[in-house]
Amino acid sequence: MTTDAAASLAIASAVEGISTLGPLDDAAMAVAAARLDRLTKPPGSLGRLEELVISIAGITGRADVPVDRRWIVVAAGDHGVAREGVSAYPPEVTAQMVANFVTGGAAINVLAAVTGTSLLVVDVGVAGAIPRTRPAARAGCQGGRLLRARIANGTASMTAGPAMKRTDMLHAVEVGLRTVEHLRRDDGVDVLGLGEMGIGNTTAASAIVAVLTGEAVSRVTGAGTGIDADRRSHKIAVIERAIEVNQPDPTDPLGVLAAVGGFEIAALVGLMLGAGAARIPVILDGFITGAAALLAATLQPALAPRLIASHQSTEPGHAIVLGRLGLRPYLDLGLRLGEGSGAALLMGILDAASRIRDEMATFDSAAVSGRTDG
Amino acid sequence: MTTDAAASLAIASAVEGISTLGPLDDAAMAVAAARLDRLTKPPGSLGRLEELVISIAGITGRADVPVDRRWIVVAAGDHGVAREGVSAYPPEVTAQMVANFVTGGAAINVLAAVTGTSLLVVDVGVAGAIPRTRPAARAGCQGGRLLRARIANGTASMTAGPAMKRTDMLHAVEVGLRTVEHLRRDDGVDVLGLGEMGIGNTTAASAIVAVLTGEAVSRVTGAGTGIDADRRSHKIAVIERAIEVNQPDPTDPLGVLAAVGGFEIAALVGLMLGAGAARIPVILDGFITGAAALLAATLQPALAPRLIASHQSTEPGHAIVLGRLGLRPYLDLGLRLGEGSGAALLMGILDAASRIRDEMATFDSAAVSGRTDG
Repeated sequence: MTTDAAASLAIASAVEGISTLGPLDDAAMAVAAARLDRLTKPPGSLGRLEELVISIAGITGRADVPVDRRWIVVAAGDHGVAREGVSAYPPEVTAQMVANFVTGGAAINVLAAVTGTSLLVVDVGVAGAIPRTRPAARAGCQGGRLLRARIANGTASMTAGPAMKRTDMLHAVEVGLRTVEHLRRDDGVDVLGLGEMGIGNTTAASAIVAVLTGEAVSRVTGAGTGIDADRRSHKIAVIERAIEVNQPDPTDPLGVLAAVGGFEIAALVGLMLGAGAARIPVILDGFITGAAALLAATLQPALAPRLIASHQSTEPGHAIVLGRLGLRPYLDLGLRLGEGSGAALLMGILDAASRIRDEMATFDSAAVSGRTDG
Repeated sequence: MTTDAAASLAIASAVEGISTLGPLDDAAMAVAAARLDRLTKPPGSLGRLEELVISIAGITGRADVPVDRRWIVVAAGDHGVAREGVSAYPPEVTAQMVANFVTGGAAINVLAAVTGTSLLVVDVGVAGAIPRTRPAARAGCQGGRLLRARIANGTASMTAGPAMKRTDMLHAVEVGLRTVEHLRRDDGVDVLGLGEMGIGNTTAASAIVAVLTGEAVSRVTGAGTGIDADRRSHKIAVIERAIEVNQPDPTDPLGVLAAVGGFEIAALVGLMLGAGAARIPVILDGFITGAAALLAATLQPALAPRLIASHQSTEPGHAIVLGRLGLRPYLDLGLRLGEGSGAALLMGILDAASRIRDEMATFDSAAVSGRTDG
């Protein structure tokens, strides 16, 4: 672990690095668009698949960039506030699900495997020991790699003060930055999808979004993994109390993160900043990665167009987050799982879109006639 | 080729076969839903992926049915009305694109390959010779199989009388029925996606939808492959004239098909009826397959719940068609290409959904705690 000053410097350096990139690369986008228009299909007829190809060109600065080294990083952490009855599941599920990610039995394992995406799970702040389990004998079962980078055994409850000490928050963000460095150096990464696991983390995400946007807590708080109306009312009251107790300043996103965030959310902020500065396209998942994106884009507004919204989740705050980020989700499949499940599904769409770009014939090469009015 | 009576009998037999299946299999759907709820995720949290798994169970009558043998059948035919300036592309593009499908350079080749789907192209009524072309040297290029089953060299213009003689229409529907039989016998087919190619066929589809729904032609007529407002006005006038000349009876769907349809649309009707009767889930593509579905579901209303809407196209009539069929599309990606492109993309989602069903751990097997309130 580095000093606080070193962690702060690493964060500031990524924030500064994104600003020096400037806007998306118009020239690369124009080359990609022109390439798409030479393919044997009416111009624009593949709609958002073409938009995705052009976005990737703008983010990376390359019209023909490969997207073969696809990663999903799932950041995991526990939340002290989970002991206050805000979730349908007990807190030990976080550690159990991390074990499930490693042995290959979770939804994200399947969705990553189907879309040719590698999986890395980062324990940034899980509370208990990760259970040792053996993979069940299942067809297709593909475990994720585990990175042990735990800062603490879960956060403190945000209702009694800050969820994280500022130094712990800084180091958790740094874990995200370093994870991008490791992936770039050791494995290579063309596109980075993000996911998370943490019982109680829709509570933290709703608190972050309420503070940053000024929206009423009730407007940005949903059913999470599936609580009923009574428990949702309780969840709203808990968040309102946490904001009252901490009085986070919306113009200080790292302060908001420490006060009402979580370790996995801090790591997600670092992952986004690190990937953004390295011109690696970032694919968001649902509401929690969205809350992290809102924090990161408040630190550095030039990051937002470098993020790709995979899907619209059923959490009511998610549409508000995407609206603030100026992002339009590609999929709307009623997902509310997290883990990077929507990001993984979009990896399949991205694979298809990039192969359209690379593998289709042109009108010339296939001897297909063009428009009669062109 | 069979006699008219034999073709009529084959069609009537499929229509009758679907009615004997009755409604979707509730028991299989309940088993599939219960299986999904034992997996390590909050119940229902994978939203429409779970809905897709349950639909497939209801259609096939099996909660664990494989969906590995995925086919896209692209029916191709030419339209006499294309000579009246309703499309942005010249009619010879139909034959050129069939050649492109065979050599592997079209969008559907790429999307089928990405999603592990086999491709069969059926020439039911292309006007000219299919050009002989050699596959260009491209990575991943995967050609489709061509079935030569041409009934005639394109339709007559619907503005001067029926597009097809009734006997030709019946035989084109029969081509679709026989294609399902061939696939079942020779290759095996777990799920059937449908696509089409035919310059001018949004004009035919708009005419069909206007007649069957009673909607104004202008409400169900769009830009097709990308015509401007003036040409769209002309297209609307052409369709109105065709309806005036033919006076098709909306209660006689085969009469409507002969009057203002096309050979590829007739084959699609046969493909749907044949697959429906065989309990094979049918994945629709966009507006033209939707118009064919509306014809088939008018012949046999019990077919509609056995169809799956892959996506919402940008053609204005498509939403009206899906509303009438009671189908909700899974994807909304601004596609307006046809060829089965949206159906192929949904094959990827279906693959993911079925592997979720088959490969995820259960709460018991992974030792993950359940809900605290359950």
